[in-house]
Amino acid sequence: MFDETTMRLHIDPLLLGALREDITSEDVSTCSILQEAVPGSVDLLVKEDGIICGLQIFARVFTLLDPDTETVFTKKDGDAVRCGEKIGEVHGDMRVLLEGERTALNYLQRMSGIATCTKKTAELLRGTKIRLLDTRKTTPNNRIFEKYAVTVGGGYNHRLGLSDGVLLKDNHISAAGGITKAVALAREHAPFVRRIEVETENLDMVREAVEAGADIIMLDNMDHDTMQKACEIIGGRADIEISGNVTQGSIAGIRDLDVDYISSGALTHSAPILDLSMKHLHPVGGQN
Amino acid sequence: MFDETTMRLHIDPLLLGALREDITSEDVSTCSILQEAVPGSVDLLVKEDGIICGLQIFARVFTLLDPDTETVFTKKDGDAVRCGEKIGEVHGDMRVLLEGERTALNYLQRMSGIATCTKKTAELLRGTKIRLLDTRKTTPNNRIFEKYAVTVGGGYNHRLGLSDGVLLKDNHISAAGGITKAVALAREHAPFVRRIEVETENLDMVREAVEAGADIIMLDNMDHDTMQKACEIIGGRADIEISGNVTQGSIAGIRDLDVDYISSGALTHSAPILDLSMKHLHPVGGQN
Amino acid sequence: MFDETTMRLHIDPLLLGALREDITSEDVSTCSILQEAVPGSVDLLVKEDGIICGLQIFARVFTLLDPDTETVFTKKDGDAVRCGEKIGEVHGDMRVLLEGERTALNYLQRMSGIATCTKKTAELLRGTKIRLLDTRKTTPNNRIFEKYAVTVGGGYNHRLGLSDGVLLKDNHISAAGGITKAVALAREHAPFVRRIEVETENLDMVREAVEAGADIIMLDNMDHDTMQKACEIIGGRADIEISGNVTQGSIAGIRDLDVDYISSGALTHSAPILDLSMKHLHPVGGQN
Amino acid sequence: MFDETTMRLHIDPLLLGALREDITSEDVSTCSILQEAVPGSVDLLVKEDGIICGLQIFARVFTLLDPDTETVFTKKDGDAVRCGEKIGEVHGDMRVLLEGERTALNYLQRMSGIATCTKKTAELLRGTKIRLLDTRKTTPNNRIFEKYAVTVGGGYNHRLGLSDGVLLKDNHISAAGGITKAVALAREHAPFVRRIEVETENLDMVREAVEAGADIIMLDNMDHDTMQKACEIIGGRADIEISGNVTQGSIAGIRDLDVDYISSGALTHSAPILDLSMKHLHPVGGQN
Amino acid sequence: MFDETTMRLHIDPLLLGALREDITSEDVSTCSILQEAVPGSVDLLVKEDGIICGLQIFARVFTLLDPDTETVFTKKDGDAVRCGEKIGEVHGDMRVLLEGERTALNYLQRMSGIATCTKKTAELLRGTKIRLLDTRKTTPNNRIFEKYAVTVGGGYNHRLGLSDGVLLKDNHISAAGGITKAVALAREHAPFVRRIEVETENLDMVREAVEAGADIIMLDNMDHDTMQKACEIIGGRADIEISGNVTQGSIAGIRDLDVDYISSGALTHSAPILDLSMKHLHPVGGQN
Amino acid sequence: MFDETTMRLHIDPLLLGALREDITSEDVSTCSILQEAVPGSVDLLVKEDGIICGLQIFARVFTLLDPDTETVFTKKDGDAVRCGEKIGEVHGDMRVLLEGERTALNYLQRMSGIATCTKKTAELLRGTKIRLLDTRKTTPNNRIFEKYAVTVGGGYNHRLGLSDGVLLKDNHISAAGGITKAVALAREHAPFVRRIEVETENLDMVREAVEAGADIIMLDNMDHDTMQKACEIIGGRADIEISGNVTQGSIAGIRDLDVDYISSGALTHSAPILDLSMKHLHPVGGQN
Repeated sequence: MFDETTMRLHIDPLLLGALREDITSEDVSTCSILQEAVPGSVDLLVKEDGIICGLQIFARVFTLLDPDTETVFTKKDGDAVRCGEKIGEVHGDMRVLLEGERTALNYLQRMSGIATCTKKTAELLRGTKIRLLDTRKTTPNNRIFEKYAVTVGGGYNHRLGLSDGVLLKDNHISAAGGITKAVALAREHAPFVRRIEVETENLDMVREAVEAGADIIMLDNMDHDTMQKACEIIGGRADIEISGNVTQGSIAGIRDLDVDYISSGALTHSAPILDLSMKHLHPVGGQN
Repeated sequence: MFDETTMRLHIDPLLLGALREDITSEDVSTCSILQEAVPGSVDLLVKEDGIICGLQIFARVFTLLDPDTETVFTKKDGDAVRCGEKIGEVHGDMRVLLEGERTALNYLQRMSGIATCTKKTAELLRGTKIRLLDTRKTTPNNRIFEKYAVTVGGGYNHRLGLSDGVLLKDNHISAAGGITKAVALAREHAPFVRRIEVETENLDMVREAVEAGADIIMLDNMDHDTMQKACEIIGGRADIEISGNVTQGSIAGIRDLDVDYISSGALTHSAPILDLSMKHLHPVGGQN
Repeated sequence: MFDETTMRLHIDPLLLGALREDITSEDVSTCSILQEAVPGSVDLLVKEDGIICGLQIFARVFTLLDPDTETVFTKKDGDAVRCGEKIGEVHGDMRVLLEGERTALNYLQRMSGIATCTKKTAELLRGTKIRLLDTRKTTPNNRIFEKYAVTVGGGYNHRLGLSDGVLLKDNHISAAGGITKAVALAREHAPFVRRIEVETENLDMVREAVEAGADIIMLDNMDHDTMQKACEIIGGRADIEISGNVTQGSIAGIRDLDVDYISSGALTHSAPILDLSMKHLHPVGGQN
Repeated sequence: MFDETTMRLHIDPLLLGALREDITSEDVSTCSILQEAVPGSVDLLVKEDGIICGLQIFARVFTLLDPDTETVFTKKDGDAVRCGEKIGEVHGDMRVLLEGERTALNYLQRMSGIATCTKKTAELLRGTKIRLLDTRKTTPNNRIFEKYAVTVGGGYNHRLGLSDGVLLKDNHISAAGGITKAVALAREHAPFVRRIEVETENLDMVREAVEAGADIIMLDNMDHDTMQKACEIIGGRADIEISGNVTQGSIAGIRDLDVDYISSGALTHSAPILDLSMKHLHPVGGQN
Repeated sequence: MFDETTMRLHIDPLLLGALREDITSEDVSTCSILQEAVPGSVDLLVKEDGIICGLQIFARVFTLLDPDTETVFTKKDGDAVRCGEKIGEVHGDMRVLLEGERTALNYLQRMSGIATCTKKTAELLRGTKIRLLDTRKTTPNNRIFEKYAVTVGGGYNHRLGLSDGVLLKDNHISAAGGITKAVALAREHAPFVRRIEVETENLDMVREAVEAGADIIMLDNMDHDTMQKACEIIGGRADIEISGNVTQGSIAGIRDLDVDYISSGALTHSAPILDLSMKHLHPVGGQN
Repeated sequence: MFDETTMRLHIDPLLLGALREDITSEDVSTCSILQEAVPGSVDLLVKEDGIICGLQIFARVFTLLDPDTETVFTKKDGDAVRCGEKIGEVHGDMRVLLEGERTALNYLQRMSGIATCTKKTAELLRGTKIRLLDTRKTTPNNRIFEKYAVTVGGGYNHRLGLSDGVLLKDNHISAAGGITKAVALAREHAPFVRRIEVETENLDMVREAVEAGADIIMLDNMDHDTMQKACEIIGGRADIEISGNVTQGSIAGIRDLDVDYISSGALTHSAPILDLSMKHLHPVGGQN
């Protein structure tokens, strides 16, 4: 759940942008037919098994259009849902229900898709201390939703963006003239609350990173053997993150390593949606 | 290609939003290391076979950060690319190259993923007159990119949003009191340049729609037999669109039908990305 | 009436822009005198006969400044009003009534002016099947209000803008290398829900347009005789729109033609306002 | 002429808003036909005698879409133009010329209409010391353009809005408990650089206003006789403004009065446009 | 107090900007600990003697985050407060109280600091007719708050900005070719409701300004003797403002002069904050 | 120096806001006098000894108004400047120089004031390993400028805001049910790149914080003796920050402690400006 502060400061502007993208003047079909408000109700149905995520966003789309809209859910974010289940209802002006439907579902389906994919991946790490991390490979202007969906699915967030985490990659290192210098420059210039992570590609880099006082060392695209040796070299002096085309298929081969984190871009860049729909829109008695 | 007008009015604000999402104050890693501009160059590499799409957007991300950045491509949108190929270079301040990298790739990978998926699907319709259409099941705040990627992959665009197309669904029809009345209301209220499409679920609805003068009739979730009969009923008096969980798997079974359009939400809601990366960043001689 | 969705997504930002244009910091006269809220009431009076239009916008200006403001009207959009009539009251903080007055009236007077002018023009077409259309000759940042006022006055909307309608003019035609090619290009590139209109200046162009499959043919600045022949050539195969300095004076001469639409820029670019005013502001008993 | 500062801070955002109003995604007609930039040229023609105003805005619309567009004029703001005259050319990508045309003309026609109307009205005051003033009865989100057009036509600006001028009306006066108290409150609270104007409806109010030290006294809707007496009462102790349905017709009857200003809302709320058009678009040799 | 109009049009956007500056995604500390709303209460305490100013802004910060937040104060703007005093309480979701605290205090402390400093300075002028004015030396994007704080402390506002006051400085004068010409140009071009102020540096300039009809004459950086002579020259024909590094220390030496205004930049550019804090946050019984 | 990315994404919008705050329509004084561009030049002078900071922002204000403006400096951020020194020149349209002057100086004076104050404070720590930190007690909508000025003066940045650093205060601790639980919750929910800081008020809290694995421990408002014991307890297991009304006066008494950081709100909330001015504006030969 996002708190109201985050909703107002950061999420509402994105939702309004999405609604304006879909409705550049008015919903011409709906406004042709329904020239007055008509109170109605519609069901939210699941069409595929998975983890539901984004119900708060789904509801907010409708209340942004009309604060009198009401939404009731029988599930909460993170719950497993089954194909065929009805998991909620939206009540309000039928025009609003029709106008917000697509945008609300577009968010809910994508967020649920990511939560479902993350859950499956995270379960492959069950029984280990390893945490599954996301990356910055998110859809533009959707990062806040996608990073949240990862946590709902049981994953953890890496940095939110370039401004709130230090990650020194090969280019930074060569520009600085070595890992030691790069770490020192970061300690001098970055806000002091930052942990410093160094991306390494071989054991020499691992050694230099740990000596330089890196807080986190990323093992990037190494084979199992090299990673194992890297863990020994580090010996608890830094947190360890494994990175590099981590997929559900490849995780089995690394879960025995003594590392802290595995990061995977696929969680956010290639998860298919979870199929959901709104059905049974009907007017409800009483006048609006 | 988008023309400069569309870039300035509609795309630049979205790209700036995406950049601000990733960089909320400054790229703290890069600015710690590189405290002055250093001219450099980086390669754009393909890591998976597919159709490239979004090169103009990729380049724009960098020029928005610094208009002196230059981008050279050896491919253009719609070209097939192969794993391992280098397809472009970006030249400019190394800090800008590092800061724009992720956002530029996030766009390019997603757009190329959609173009690649569309191409594969459209090829299943080769030899027929049937055009493959997208839907409004796009990622919020990314529709303009995703609809463009569909056309690059050989598909066509359905309406852009609720304001520029009339599509009368079951709820509109029941609210109006029948297809005939719904079509009449739309003709009265919608701007006269609109074609009117009616979504039908059975042959009675098809009959009423064609009599009511619908310009386009959507056959929604019908079986093959019913669709064939619907085509006969319509008999060229309206364009015909097939809709309803159309996937690469199910297209073979409908390509014999005498219809004009098949629409598929999967093109935009579930296409995996095309893997691309930026590599070999290096400073280039001369001063900036 | 606009629905709440359109009000929130598109109209509120324009109204707030207008209010900020008038009040760049505070209403210095009002705030000097009234340093606390004082509940009051004011009347909305008609000073000229005509058609009222924009009451919803008038009211919204006040509720945007203070949601506790209440507005009561005895007329609705489209009603005829007479000079001297009182047609509404606004109740709320007297400061808000003073601060919103000018902006609210500026909208209401202009929209009512257009509705009144449209009504007069549309009545000249009574007894024919011809519909009166507006154009894109609207006041910048006021199109949504002006196009709505045209419909309230009994007219119909042509396309809303360049993105939601295809209209191929002489320049498009010559750039494409002829009408046939231009229509084919539009069919290939425009979203499939678009009708395609071609602007023609002589009978040869009319012939080519109808053969090319244009959905709508505009007869631009033709004399009566040519228009009559054009109608015969088209023979029901396309809708027909007459355009070119159509005014109340010139309509009598064309109402006998077998055409579908007449468009007139004067409805929105040269209609004088309908004079209205707010009077009798007075405090009302009780505390706020 | 606006200076570059005003253009960037206040006018560009309005022009971009107007362009986005017309082009919600892309100009679908033009982009269907012209898929690449083609250099071209188009003429700006006058179709009605009048005063031209807004050439800078006209040109800016095109340069906002594409900074490489060039505009050449043979007239400048305030010049008289004749029907049939060619007064300028725009050179640039033909797509940009087509896409900006309507918005550029919508501004130029309205501003020229106001300048033309103001010029005619101001000439009725020639030979007197009386200055013609505009009011706040401007089109929402167009005030900066309309107030400028009034000055180009030979008029003068009243206050720009509620924040930059003090005008105490009947409601302020009664709320304060009389003119004397109202003026005192304004002197206490308004920034000290403000002149204070009082609206009066009869000679008693005039007397009280002049005693209270009003800087400007507005004679609102008085007959000629009363106005003459008011002038005598004031006797040079304050500037005098005449207001109340001042039109070209009624000015003759008041130009003999010893007043400083006459204000007229009609200048901005009911001036018809000046008809102008862009013609002869053609590609020009050479590549873009 | 600002009225609701000014709050909505101009202050809320600034407060939201300040909140987004502090919270770029979410308050990660608070959201980690409090994952649901918990009703609570917190006290507003004074840690230094002074004048309180900005309570309305302080409260608005919290209601913008959550409209259900309630604030109660025992003081109002302009009241003297003592170190140790509790002057208010905020009730609401504890997360909101924590998230808004710093931004709310940042405003309140600065505004109170300016009011306190102004009060001390204004008291040095007690017993004279001289009014203390602020300048445009305000903190960027905080002028509306700082100018208000000056009035709360007993000062008066000079112009709000470059658009709402005419102040002809040496550069304007030399560009115009003398004071007389500069004043004439301003009378011709500035909206007629503007008073015209001229900045003078010596007695010749004073003489020319008063002859040119300046409404206000600023004596800039003159010694006491020169100022006295300037006052005699002006002899009531214009208001007089003294300017030039006016501080609490230097005022004693000029309070005997027969001038109307003294302006001081230090009020807004160098006032230290008034120390305040929020303490004793605690949950309150009952459910949210 | 900010890099171009940060300038464009985050600083330009703030500068434009500040300019629009000062110029709500046009600079009416300047535009009355100078109706055409006149090339000119103006000097930047120092009126008080100190550290200069913000030259890049000063220059940007002018180039945002007119990109042809050129600025030359003889000093760079962080340099000591002396009263009377000329440290730069601005060349461009004299109107732009007049219009941007106040806003440019308002930034430069404040930033230099903070850098000067920080420098003095930091020098009191010379010879120790202790770093001087800023806080979140910055002026709303000016944090990015003020935090930068602290680094220019030799200080270091604490977190930028609530979203990029975890600081668990008494309220968080009591809401969580103790330090141990609070730290555990933060480790579970905050992005893993965050260091976790705990604010402590006594030695028991220090002990619990260090056991809970806090990365940084803040000693808040403790006396010297307690702080010394806290350092011993921590024994290098966490970084130590001293906080609580740290001023230039109180630093001498704590510089002997074995701590890593001292934070001071006064650096940004109460630094007086450094006095600077623009003088000697004059036209320069040649045409613009």
